[in-house]
Amino acid sequence: MPILARFTKYLLCFMKLTLLDNQVVDIMCRRGGGVEDGEMNCKKEGGAILFTEEEEALVVKSWNLMKKDAGEWGVNFFLKIFEIAPSAQKIFPFLRDSNVPLEQNPKLKPHAKSVFVMTCEAAVQLRKAGKLVIRDSSLKKLGAVHSKYGVVDEHFEVTKYALLETIKEACGEMWCAEMKRAWGVAYDHLVAAIKTEMKPLAP
Amino acid sequence: MPILARFTKYLLCFMKLTLLDNQVVDIMCRRGGGVEDGEMNCKKEGGAILFTEEEEALVVKSWNLMKKDAGEWGVNFFLKIFEIAPSAQKIFPFLRDSNVPLEQNPKLKPHAKSVFVMTCEAAVQLRKAGKLVIRDSSLKKLGAVHSKYGVVDEHFEVTKYALLETIKEACGEMWCAEMKRAWGVAYDHLVAAIKTEMKPLAP
Repeated sequence: MPILARFTKYLLCFMKLTLLDNQVVDIMCRRGGGVEDGEMNCKKEGGAILFTEEEEALVVKSWNLMKKDAGEWGVNFFLKIFEIAPSAQKIFPFLRDSNVPLEQNPKLKPHAKSVFVMTCEAAVQLRKAGKLVIRDSSLKKLGAVHSKYGVVDEHFEVTKYALLETIKEACGEMWCAEMKRAWGVAYDHLVAAIKTEMKPLAP
Repeated sequence: MPILARFTKYLLCFMKLTLLDNQVVDIMCRRGGGVEDGEMNCKKEGGAILFTEEEEALVVKSWNLMKKDAGEWGVNFFLKIFEIAPSAQKIFPFLRDSNVPLEQNPKLKPHAKSVFVMTCEAAVQLRKAGKLVIRDSSLKKLGAVHSKYGVVDEHFEVTKYALLETIKEACGEMWCAEMKRAWGVAYDHLVAAIKTEMKPLAP
């Protein structure tokens, strides 16, 4: 795609993220045309980004399958991240300062579960609420923590891949290209929201 | 493992990398005991790092299966890298400055093939030569290129994961934990050698 056309397309996609007291973030978006795979997929409906019904159904269906074992899937999710990028362990103080093997670290499972549940619940409610709802945390805090520990684009990307691989494994035969895409779109919304609250790295 | 024991282990592991005129790098290594999975696996035999015969056999066997289709597997390898970390495309000028879709970029296949072949051939000859042999390039040049384009640890890690996934796919039922480990060790040697020629990033 020519650079000018790409630039115009992005210009036409406005995102407005507002942190409210109840830790709900409104994301309003306008699009100037079709978007390609991998680009942020924004759909306008009454001013709010929404999943399609099909995307929501796929996310809800797979989350219902996983949520009773969210702790185990959360650990799988984090172990996949560290399998792909072992150096990402240095981001987490409870891993960086630990002498016990990764799998035996007592703080891994609670942390992994909370991140996994937060991510999945944010995806599940995206269409119903027309908003990105973050549980047990504020977006400002999430942005600050991600900035503090030096999280960069590559980390968000590896985490997305690990999340999709984890859900693929959890869903077995239920997994399909559309389900992958729905989770990918939901994850992109979450990351876009976190990034708006991240401070740029010092030069 | 206690920090002191880990530190002692690393102290006992000396690596000496010397670039010779014929672009052959001697790697000499001493170890102070068994190493854990994921750590650099150095074996001393006459002063040079060598694969075990078993590791060599597994690498040679799988490379023989892949080399006739090295171009296709090379492309799969690179597409896997970009699936995990789309932003890594910005490292490659011929992708960064391109308007055509990734898969249709005419420079992708030749580049991917050359990297894949170089990596695999470096692995195959590791035991026989007792040295890391880089084809069609010098280690200094490889180090300089990786520095210039801002390659960091996370990129090397994602590339390792993508390489192992590609070989796993190529090998089908031949793939096993020992084969994964052998390729991982060979890749770690290659990256360690490249890193010795990389300049640290400007602060």
